[in-house]
Amino acid sequence: MTIVKVCLGSRSYPIFIGSNLLPRLGEFFSEAGIGRRVFLVSNPTVGDLYSARIKESLAKAGYEVTDLSIPDGETYKTLETAEKIYTDLIVQKADRNSTLVALGGGVTGDIVGFVAATFLRGVPYVQIPTTLLAQVDSAVGGKTGVNHRLGKNLLGAFYQPVLVCSDLDTLSTLPPRDFQAGLYEVIKYGLIRDSDFFSFFCDQIERTLSREPDVLEKIISRSCEIKADITSRDERESELRRILNFGHTFGHAIEAALDYEEVKHGEAVGYGMIAAAVLSRELDLLDSDNCSRVVDSILSIGALPRLELPFESLEEAMWRDKKRQDDRIVFILLSKIGATTAVDSIEAPLLQAAWSEALNRVHGQ
Amino acid sequence: MTIVKVCLGSRSYPIFIGSNLLPRLGEFFSEAGIGRRVFLVSNPTVGDLYSARIKESLAKAGYEVTDLSIPDGETYKTLETAEKIYTDLIVQKADRNSTLVALGGGVTGDIVGFVAATFLRGVPYVQIPTTLLAQVDSAVGGKTGVNHRLGKNLLGAFYQPVLVCSDLDTLSTLPPRDFQAGLYEVIKYGLIRDSDFFSFFCDQIERTLSREPDVLEKIISRSCEIKADITSRDERESELRRILNFGHTFGHAIEAALDYEEVKHGEAVGYGMIAAAVLSRELDLLDSDNCSRVVDSILSIGALPRLELPFESLEEAMWRDKKRQDDRIVFILLSKIGATTAVDSIEAPLLQAAWSEALNRVHGQ
Repeated sequence: MTIVKVCLGSRSYPIFIGSNLLPRLGEFFSEAGIGRRVFLVSNPTVGDLYSARIKESLAKAGYEVTDLSIPDGETYKTLETAEKIYTDLIVQKADRNSTLVALGGGVTGDIVGFVAATFLRGVPYVQIPTTLLAQVDSAVGGKTGVNHRLGKNLLGAFYQPVLVCSDLDTLSTLPPRDFQAGLYEVIKYGLIRDSDFFSFFCDQIERTLSREPDVLEKIISRSCEIKADITSRDERESELRRILNFGHTFGHAIEAALDYEEVKHGEAVGYGMIAAAVLSRELDLLDSDNCSRVVDSILSIGALPRLELPFESLEEAMWRDKKRQDDRIVFILLSKIGATTAVDSIEAPLLQAAWSEALNRVHGQ
Repeated sequence: MTIVKVCLGSRSYPIFIGSNLLPRLGEFFSEAGIGRRVFLVSNPTVGDLYSARIKESLAKAGYEVTDLSIPDGETYKTLETAEKIYTDLIVQKADRNSTLVALGGGVTGDIVGFVAATFLRGVPYVQIPTTLLAQVDSAVGGKTGVNHRLGKNLLGAFYQPVLVCSDLDTLSTLPPRDFQAGLYEVIKYGLIRDSDFFSFFCDQIERTLSREPDVLEKIISRSCEIKADITSRDERESELRRILNFGHTFGHAIEAALDYEEVKHGEAVGYGMIAAAVLSRELDLLDSDNCSRVVDSILSIGALPRLELPFESLEEAMWRDKKRQDDRIVFILLSKIGATTAVDSIEAPLLQAAWSEALNRVHGQ
C-alpha cells in the first residue's frame, strides 16, 4: 500500500492506494477519527459489487452504515439527485458528525462531495473511487459539483474529503475503454510535471495495459502525488492549478461539441493533448522529436474513437467554456516534456491546423 | 462611518456602517478590487427602494450592473430560488470574476451567499443588509444557506463576503416590529461578551428606539465587532461560536413549534434569553439581581407577542433541532452579565419552570 498525503493545513488528508484495501476501511476510518454514523452512497451497479464488503469492514470497527442509492450516469449529476440525497439524510436523521462515503466513479464522487459541502453547512466525506479516472483525477483536489441543464459542473464547491481509499481490485471489473480513458490523465501528469514518470509510463505501457497491480499502484500514486502537490499549493484554481488543464481546452470543447456523447472525458483529453503538443511544436516551444514522442505515447494507450468534428464546432464550444476570462482563451502548452507554459490569443488558423493534424494522427493510427 | 474589520487571513473583509453610504458603494467596490460585472439581487420591495441609488453609484465607478429579482419572503428561501438565480447568471454569461450583491434582509443575504458559494465553485459576493437583524447578525459571519421542506437552514455553506455595507438610512423604512426584533440580537452581544455594551444599551434605549443615527452606528458597530471577533476565531462553529446561540436553543424551538408564524426570529430569541436568564439563576450561575436586570432590559425593548405555547411542543421541537449532538441539548447560559457557560443535560422540569416564568414575565408586562 502507498499513502499519499495531501497537505492543506488542518484539512490535510491521506490517499490510500493498494490492493485489497476495502477490508481495511474500518481501520482507516478509526484512525481518521470518523464518527460512528456513516452514509454509503453509490449507484446500484457499483453498490452490488462492493458495498457488502465495505459494510462488513466498517461494521467490525463499530460503524453504523446506512445505504443510499442514486441513479447511474452523468445525466443524474444534477441538483435533483443532490436534493434526493439531502432528503434521505434528513429522514435518516443524519447530523453534523455523520460522514458521507462516495463509492463509485467521478459522477458519484462529485455529487456526494457537493452534498457533503452543503448539507448542514458541511459534513465530513470519504471518497472510494472505483474507476481509474476517479482514482487519479476527480477524487483528488476537492472539486465537487453537479451539472446545470445549461452546462456541466456549473454548480459546486471546493471541499476536501477526510480520506480517499483507492482499492486497485475495483479496477479489475472496469471495462477496457474506461480503463484506457483513465490512462490519458495519467500520462498528462508526466507530461506537465515529471519527465521521469513519463518515461516510466512509456516503458511500462504493456504491463499497465495488463493491469499488473504493482505498476498500477505506482502510476496511480505518482499521479495523485502530482495532483496533490499542485492542488495543495493552489486549492482554488488560480494560476498554478491551470496546468492541470493541459489537453483540456480542446478536450472540454470536444466533449461539449459532441454533446458529451461518442467520446469519454479521458479520450477527449487524449485528443486534446495531441493537439496541444502540435501547437507547442508550431509555436517553437517544443522540438519536433519530443512532439512525436508525446503523440506516440498517447497513441500507444490504444485506439481513440474516430471523430468527425469540424473545427468550427470546436471553436464555438471553446468560447462557451466557463474558464474563459476577459475574452481570451488560455492554452496550457509544453515547453519540454515535464514542463508547461500558458499561451493565450492563439490565432484560429493555427488552432485549426493543430486540430487537423490531431485528427489525421488518430485516424491514421 | 465606522469600519469593522473581520479578520480571516486572505479572506478578511470590511463592514462599513454609517449614514448615506449607498452613494459611496462605487468607491468601496473599487477599493476592494471588485471586477467590473455585478449582479444585484433583491426582492421587488427592497429593490424599488434602493437599487436605483446603488446602480447609479456603481455605474459612476465603471461597474456594469445587472438586476436579478427573487420573490419576497422566507417561503422562497429554497433550492428552487437558488436555481432560478443560477439560471439567470448562466443566461447572462456571469463568469468567475462576476460579483453577486445581496440587497435586502437575512433571507436575501442567505440565498445570495449560498449561490455565490456554489456557482462556478465560488464567486465573490457583497452584502448590503437593509434590516437591523441582518446588519447585526446574518450579514456577518459567513453563514449562507437555504431551507429544505423538512427543516430550516439545512442546506448551506460557510462562505465569506468581500465586503458588507450597512447603510443606516435603510433602517428608516423598517417597520417598528422588525426594528425591535433586531434589537434582541443586539442586546445578546452585550449579555454574552461585553457588560459595558449592555449597560450602554440599557442607558440609551430611548434614543435607540427613536433610531438616532449616532446611537444606531454605535450599537451596530459594536454588535458586528463582537460577532466578527467570535466568528474569526471559530469560523466553522465548533466551541466558541456556540455562545452566539445564547437564547437560541429556546428561540429556535419556539419558532419551529409555531411553524415560523406568529413570532419573528428576534422575538423568539427575546423569549429564549429570558428563559436562559431564569435557568442561569435557577442553576446558581447568575444572581437574582442580575437575572432581573437581564429580563427587564429585554422587556424594555417593547412588547413581545403574547404566545400560548405549551412546554411539551417546545420540548419536542428542541429535540428536532439540528444542533443536537450525541443526544444532549446544550444551553448557553450566563455566568454573569458579559460571560457565558455551556450546560447540557438540564432536566425537563427545570426547563418547564423556566419557560413558565418567561411566559409570565412577558404576559405580565
